[in-house]
Amino acid sequence: MEFDAALTPPATQHHWVLTLICVDGPGIVHAISGAVVAAGGNITESQQFTSHDTGRFFMRLQIETHAGRDELEAALAPVVEKHSMDWRLDVVGRPLRTLVLASTAAHCVNDLLFRQRAGQLPVHIPLVLSNHGSLRDLAGFYGVPFESLPVVDAASKAAFEVRILRAVEEHDVELVVLARYMQILSPELCEALAGRAINIHHSFLPGFKGANPYKQAHARGVKLIGATAHFVTSDLDEGPIIEQNVVRVDHSRSASELVAIGQDEESRTLTQAVKWFAEDRVLLDGARTIIFR
Amino acid sequence: MEFDAALTPPATQHHWVLTLICVDGPGIVHAISGAVVAAGGNITESQQFTSHDTGRFFMRLQIETHAGRDELEAALAPVVEKHSMDWRLDVVGRPLRTLVLASTAAHCVNDLLFRQRAGQLPVHIPLVLSNHGSLRDLAGFYGVPFESLPVVDAASKAAFEVRILRAVEEHDVELVVLARYMQILSPELCEALAGRAINIHHSFLPGFKGANPYKQAHARGVKLIGATAHFVTSDLDEGPIIEQNVVRVDHSRSASELVAIGQDEESRTLTQAVKWFAEDRVLLDGARTIIFR
Amino acid sequence: MEFDAALTPPATQHHWVLTLICVDGPGIVHAISGAVVAAGGNITESQQFTSHDTGRFFMRLQIETHAGRDELEAALAPVVEKHSMDWRLDVVGRPLRTLVLASTAAHCVNDLLFRQRAGQLPVHIPLVLSNHGSLRDLAGFYGVPFESLPVVDAASKAAFEVRILRAVEEHDVELVVLARYMQILSPELCEALAGRAINIHHSFLPGFKGANPYKQAHARGVKLIGATAHFVTSDLDEGPIIEQNVVRVDHSRSASELVAIGQDEESRTLTQAVKWFAEDRVLLDGARTIIFR
Amino acid sequence: MEFDAALTPPATQHHWVLTLICVDGPGIVHAISGAVVAAGGNITESQQFTSHDTGRFFMRLQIETHAGRDELEAALAPVVEKHSMDWRLDVVGRPLRTLVLASTAAHCVNDLLFRQRAGQLPVHIPLVLSNHGSLRDLAGFYGVPFESLPVVDAASKAAFEVRILRAVEEHDVELVVLARYMQILSPELCEALAGRAINIHHSFLPGFKGANPYKQAHARGVKLIGATAHFVTSDLDEGPIIEQNVVRVDHSRSASELVAIGQDEESRTLTQAVKWFAEDRVLLDGARTIIFR
Repeated sequence: MEFDAALTPPATQHHWVLTLICVDGPGIVHAISGAVVAAGGNITESQQFTSHDTGRFFMRLQIETHAGRDELEAALAPVVEKHSMDWRLDVVGRPLRTLVLASTAAHCVNDLLFRQRAGQLPVHIPLVLSNHGSLRDLAGFYGVPFESLPVVDAASKAAFEVRILRAVEEHDVELVVLARYMQILSPELCEALAGRAINIHHSFLPGFKGANPYKQAHARGVKLIGATAHFVTSDLDEGPIIEQNVVRVDHSRSASELVAIGQDEESRTLTQAVKWFAEDRVLLDGARTIIFR
Repeated sequence: MEFDAALTPPATQHHWVLTLICVDGPGIVHAISGAVVAAGGNITESQQFTSHDTGRFFMRLQIETHAGRDELEAALAPVVEKHSMDWRLDVVGRPLRTLVLASTAAHCVNDLLFRQRAGQLPVHIPLVLSNHGSLRDLAGFYGVPFESLPVVDAASKAAFEVRILRAVEEHDVELVVLARYMQILSPELCEALAGRAINIHHSFLPGFKGANPYKQAHARGVKLIGATAHFVTSDLDEGPIIEQNVVRVDHSRSASELVAIGQDEESRTLTQAVKWFAEDRVLLDGARTIIFR
Repeated sequence: MEFDAALTPPATQHHWVLTLICVDGPGIVHAISGAVVAAGGNITESQQFTSHDTGRFFMRLQIETHAGRDELEAALAPVVEKHSMDWRLDVVGRPLRTLVLASTAAHCVNDLLFRQRAGQLPVHIPLVLSNHGSLRDLAGFYGVPFESLPVVDAASKAAFEVRILRAVEEHDVELVVLARYMQILSPELCEALAGRAINIHHSFLPGFKGANPYKQAHARGVKLIGATAHFVTSDLDEGPIIEQNVVRVDHSRSASELVAIGQDEESRTLTQAVKWFAEDRVLLDGARTIIFR
Repeated sequence: MEFDAALTPPATQHHWVLTLICVDGPGIVHAISGAVVAAGGNITESQQFTSHDTGRFFMRLQIETHAGRDELEAALAPVVEKHSMDWRLDVVGRPLRTLVLASTAAHCVNDLLFRQRAGQLPVHIPLVLSNHGSLRDLAGFYGVPFESLPVVDAASKAAFEVRILRAVEEHDVELVVLARYMQILSPELCEALAGRAINIHHSFLPGFKGANPYKQAHARGVKLIGATAHFVTSDLDEGPIIEQNVVRVDHSRSASELVAIGQDEESRTLTQAVKWFAEDRVLLDGARTIIFR
């Protein structure tokens, strides 16, 4: 549970999102709703799920209350303690501090920036970090700082990863988005960013892992191509899946046409995953995700 | 709240579905979850929604408990009374007594019967009632009683409606499904079956109301055709929508080809709506439906 | 048939698109393919359709040849004359001169400009014309001239339409795109732009014509919302449909959330329609469109 | 090219489907359309494709003519000979002689039989052959002969395969459909049925090959599940793909619920593939299929 003092809302603020995970058992909902009542709160949205795979209970609540963070936390404390809950309390709509990693492809970065600007994506992007300079103007248009460092060998790759970690620290980054960043992260970096780095893979996983998925898709003659947003792990393209979409294609499409057709699915799949994550709708249940849409 | 003594489960049965509707306000979830705890229950599924249009609160719970109906009702009584709840308690999976009305088209009836037999649709169908005899063998294959009465004029139409109402009474019918029944019900019958009759309309409503929707769709040159399952009201094709699906078509399809293509969407849309209704997942909020999928 | 001298391809250019419409009859394909052979051409893509509604024959060919426009036209002349064909010959991939009309909404304009820049949309946009100034920077970023004129009364509305017509003339515009331009065009302007103006309507037509379709959709409780790209005619939202898409929504979405959700469908539906039009894939068959995808 | 004397149409029959495959080159369309003209024919449907992977040209025509098979073949002979075409001429709508293999699952068999009966699937099914007896009544209801032979060991499996081959011979079977037949065919049988056996696999291939794909899909946490109809080859689940569909699922679905949800996609995907094959719309291009929808 990270506490973010700087973002504690003023007295007038009163819409909270609460997520919690614990071992399932009777009385949890009653205990939590009791704490909400005690804090003068009203539950405006509530979703729950019990995993039969892991025996864990997952819940996401939105709560309206005049209470501040301290009061609400105090009311919740006995319950979360009793059930050893993994929990998180945040203000609904607070922009998530998000670092974007990119290479040359513009479509995913463009979609993220456009939607952030349009007020449809609750993120704050302090930096776009790329191994190419080609997206500098795009970032600039949206007023987002941009930095590029070439990655050409092991040393420059290591330097890039150091830069990533420094940026995460400098900006207190909560989410790292690989928006068609075409480098494989080292196991150490994957570990450091576990549970807070999202990648978009340009295939319908688990089909066509690794390089050139559209070429693979063309060769196999699939009738639908897709995109998969997933958490980054050191096991390439095997991280927990957050969202997937597909689009129909036919025999007449070349591999390079598939690349163009697939871009829409990539953009909207990644943006959707980032939006859900920023709204605290994505919880991890082992190798699977719980999505409280 | 209808009580069904004959279906009160034995002591070993312990999975309940509870739906409730009331004016929204603070503390409802806590009060209900408290009643569940008092009855020794565990909430295995929970969904809620507050309608900003009508100010009403909707909830659906699945509850596992060793308590019988009496105990559970006793525990809930103070809460439902205090909040003047419209509520319904039933056994999860109990087959809903469902009357099917048909004409000559087989696809929707076939889908309902096949799925009921396959254990995927929790309904008991005591009778298929048709204004034609052509589906007799199909019903017979699935062991479902079938009766046909010709509808050729006002008198025979009235007689058919009398037969419908008698069947509803005889079999204590909880749901009437118009599975491509090609007669318009009288306002009186619509009134009598309000909230418990579902029709499938072969268009994506509100487009192409009334007769020959596929002909209308062809003439208008739409690129998607659809089907809509909705509650029957006396206002033709204007009842609350439960489910809709569409399928892509192109210029090369004639109106009669649209008829064939659309059948899949009709079947699956109607069956889906019936399934949700039978599982107590469909609640009415004025002219709209709440679907707790 | 418009001849565009300035764009006649150089000798090295040899990929043509040919569309033709005529009364159906035997031997047309043979006659046309004979003309192609005579011009030393190879057919790389071919689609045809005979409309049973209007008895007309539609064809789209892509032809590779070393022949120039004059030679190809000479070879085709006897055939198109004999069958009184409505025909059009163009260079594959030539950017269509496209005027964009906009108001305040950015998503459709952004999608058009981004894809044009990304090389995925064969249009040249000489001007974005708006009744508001808010999209000036966006157009500027993509290097597209932008002009705004307020529309506040009948006189300013008339002036705006005069400006549209002048822009069409100045830039020899082949297509006018109403990218969420929130003004109804006068019947005279609709007439002047007949067959070369495309609008995006934010509903699944013919449902929810006119103003505030998302509010209508919310009130009606539909389970899918959509967008429709269609030719502009003086009969509001009744022009021939080019493309439609839908997306699933549920009861929990407010009318304003539908607005946000629907934007994706609007953008991609409009861009798709523009792309097909620019590629000569959209032919008119009365009130319906033939789309040679 | 198989000639089916018994099915040569009477003089009044005059709607033909012609498919042809050859090395691409100039003048093919003109030559073929010339032969059609020579036979007094009119082309009512035409699709073509040139594969850049294999350099082959594929075409499917529907031709209306008063000419009989002999006349049409005579007119086509010089062209198909000159271009060494692999070709096939058949009567539009002629029911394809189709052997159905099944095990215990009813949904695919039910869909095939229902649609065949409803006149939506141009097949004649002389026999359903199963390794279980449970679908006997279903086949019987549709008037289709049914035979079951247990498969419990290598010997009974071999006997079953002998029975398949005998049935193919006896009924001059043109297509073998594995409608959730849960046995792996021997390499020899795959070879014998090459290009005329279609299987439905209950996953979105190439993901989740082999056994228990829904269990694999649940474990991997995919957000869409699917079904794939493909030609049977000795390389398990690797045959050319004919059709695929997917349906959205979420974290709340158990592996066994995925089984139920996926059945719809399996049925419609398999039936669609069989329909296209029976209509001569499926052509092979190496490991890929050309589908002339």
